[in-house]
Amino acid sequence: MPETRIVTFTTDFGLQDPFVGIMHGVVLNIEAEVRIVDISHAVRSFDILDGALTIAQAYRYFPPRTVHLIVVDPGVGSERRPIVAETEDYVFVAPDNGLLTLIESREPRFTVRHVTAERYFLQPVSQTFHGRDIFSPVAGWLAKGVAPADLGPEITDYSRLPIAGVERNGQGELCATVLKVDKFGNLITNLTEADLPPLDSASSSTIHIRIAGRLITRICGSYAEGGAEGLFAIIGSSGYLEIAARQDSAAKNLAVREGEPVSVIVGG
Amino acid sequence: MPETRIVTFTTDFGLQDPFVGIMHGVVLNIEAEVRIVDISHAVRSFDILDGALTIAQAYRYFPPRTVHLIVVDPGVGSERRPIVAETEDYVFVAPDNGLLTLIESREPRFTVRHVTAERYFLQPVSQTFHGRDIFSPVAGWLAKGVAPADLGPEITDYSRLPIAGVERNGQGELCATVLKVDKFGNLITNLTEADLPPLDSASSSTIHIRIAGRLITRICGSYAEGGAEGLFAIIGSSGYLEIAARQDSAAKNLAVREGEPVSVIVGG
Amino acid sequence: MPETRIVTFTTDFGLQDPFVGIMHGVVLNIEAEVRIVDISHAVRSFDILDGALTIAQAYRYFPPRTVHLIVVDPGVGSERRPIVAETEDYVFVAPDNGLLTLIESREPRFTVRHVTAERYFLQPVSQTFHGRDIFSPVAGWLAKGVAPADLGPEITDYSRLPIAGVERNGQGELCATVLKVDKFGNLITNLTEADLPPLDSASSSTIHIRIAGRLITRICGSYAEGGAEGLFAIIGSSGYLEIAARQDSAAKNLAVREGEPVSVIVGG
Repeated sequence: MPETRIVTFTTDFGLQDPFVGIMHGVVLNIEAEVRIVDISHAVRSFDILDGALTIAQAYRYFPPRTVHLIVVDPGVGSERRPIVAETEDYVFVAPDNGLLTLIESREPRFTVRHVTAERYFLQPVSQTFHGRDIFSPVAGWLAKGVAPADLGPEITDYSRLPIAGVERNGQGELCATVLKVDKFGNLITNLTEADLPPLDSASSSTIHIRIAGRLITRICGSYAEGGAEGLFAIIGSSGYLEIAARQDSAAKNLAVREGEPVSVIVGG
Repeated sequence: MPETRIVTFTTDFGLQDPFVGIMHGVVLNIEAEVRIVDISHAVRSFDILDGALTIAQAYRYFPPRTVHLIVVDPGVGSERRPIVAETEDYVFVAPDNGLLTLIESREPRFTVRHVTAERYFLQPVSQTFHGRDIFSPVAGWLAKGVAPADLGPEITDYSRLPIAGVERNGQGELCATVLKVDKFGNLITNLTEADLPPLDSASSSTIHIRIAGRLITRICGSYAEGGAEGLFAIIGSSGYLEIAARQDSAAKNLAVREGEPVSVIVGG
Repeated sequence: MPETRIVTFTTDFGLQDPFVGIMHGVVLNIEAEVRIVDISHAVRSFDILDGALTIAQAYRYFPPRTVHLIVVDPGVGSERRPIVAETEDYVFVAPDNGLLTLIESREPRFTVRHVTAERYFLQPVSQTFHGRDIFSPVAGWLAKGVAPADLGPEITDYSRLPIAGVERNGQGELCATVLKVDKFGNLITNLTEADLPPLDSASSSTIHIRIAGRLITRICGSYAEGGAEGLFAIIGSSGYLEIAARQDSAAKNLAVREGEPVSVIVGG
């Protein structure tokens, strides 16, 4: 008996229309024994970076051989290619627009193919809903056991997204940015633990984080430790430095959103 | 080993309350080996037409023998009947209020039964949540193999929803309406490809669409083709003419919503 | 062949971030043959009472041996304990902050254990996302067959939430409160049928409900019976007295929300 495969979905389609249910149906129509998991359908509309961050946060928590489908696709109907990418443990199906950039940066093996085998598409292919007509059926066939090599030729000129890096200026200042605001209003920056010195209690008193005209000098080990008032910094569950407010929204408190600059000076 | 059956859900219950999870539990309590797919729980509250459009867009993408449950039920607790309807490939469970009108118009076979077999209901039946007490258990028993004929007698006087049609006036003008606004702000009208002449590049220059005081003269083959600015028309993934704006919300741009009149003159 | 176990999720994580999908992945990575049902992820942020009400409404509709995971966890990263609770039919996994208070009040058997067996956690355990690192893996191992007794020692000093009761004053007035507003704007109070005299047509004319300066004197058997206008009371599907408005939002109509006082005088 073949193992049950998982297919995950990450899109900007929202849950108000039947788009997501239709895609689930298409997958199940090809392989009834698949398990479907929704990672998120609330990627911001057309925001490839937000989609890239979402799948990068989530993909490693799934069993090996999971098929991850990601559709944030402002270029649907244009010449942009559908691709499948293979890593050591997973297969990804997506439009070729940079959605997998962060996966590539984390995986030793990353092989990309241009999906050209139209026999695996839902016919006729519309020019407006490739999630239904191309990406979901390809995910279904992969889950049923079709090999990525059967889908099309390997390519190396696939799209990569320019991801804003953390810059260090001469004065020891780290110039970072807010990547994402989560449901609780925590501000997820592009700073990782590796960008910072060890955050023990001794050093934590000497961090200066400036955002939206405010100065934050506390790094806490947990939200609870943040106490009843004020803003603090914390290393979040995905390994990024976050700005948080205990049982409150830091985003509202500071009136900021994605893209907001963050300046960090440590040890000074 | 019997095949795994799928039960889909389409409701106006939203996802903030536990209503949907409870219904899933009721189905699984009857037949543990069913697969549940949510088509949408964001049908506008009490809006039967919106529910009818949602299931009509989605139902054909599921495997044969799928059980489709649809609950948009302003008449819960009144005399309106619970029904099951059978088409060639699917079974539908719904209140008898017109939710299946568009299914009937598309299917050669459409047999409706009044569900009277109360032994399949969850007892005691509340007067406020038939989704839990009647429709979900009936869907569960259907998925377990109970035949529709065991649920009650065939009826022919079931409700049909009056669906606004496209009207043609003497001057060759098509008077249509916006049926639905999707998550991206695209305006889905009640015009289908069949209402329009062939939309090749030659004829597309001579279409005049008037909506909310604006004139639209472009029909594009894809959203990407729409280019960076302005409104355009497109045949959407469900076969309806849509008004769209590239990476923007046509609904916000025009400040319109469902019910907005659309006038179309083709060919000069 | 072992039976398929169900794991349900009730959280305040929302669906915009990948938190929920990640937790599903963690469970499936431990036990691939589990069925996952989302009860709600729209519990109000950090609102333990709202989480307690949500799971209490839903848990009994699931098959015996279902594992219910509930995470509303303002104390994540503090000393609050992770617990598992067993009732006759179900197992619950939650932080020890009172989320299970209403379950305990309804179940004859209720045994609680402090989960100390860290070998079942996802390592390293973050201080910010125990839903991923503690509660989901514990739910996965329970679904796989690990016995609650293997997870840690029984405790009796677990947290209980003070739930606002209905007070009766000398004048025969019941002083109640709005517990929750549902998606349709119905106001769910903490009054149950047991608090009220039999609500037949004779007595229903003599009920006086005061809320937000308005007087309501009708108790209806169904929403449909409520008729086209005005507010009315109804015993809702969970057994609580609700204030409703036919195809309208009582919450908007009265401009009230959770916590609003409700006064009821019955019989004259």
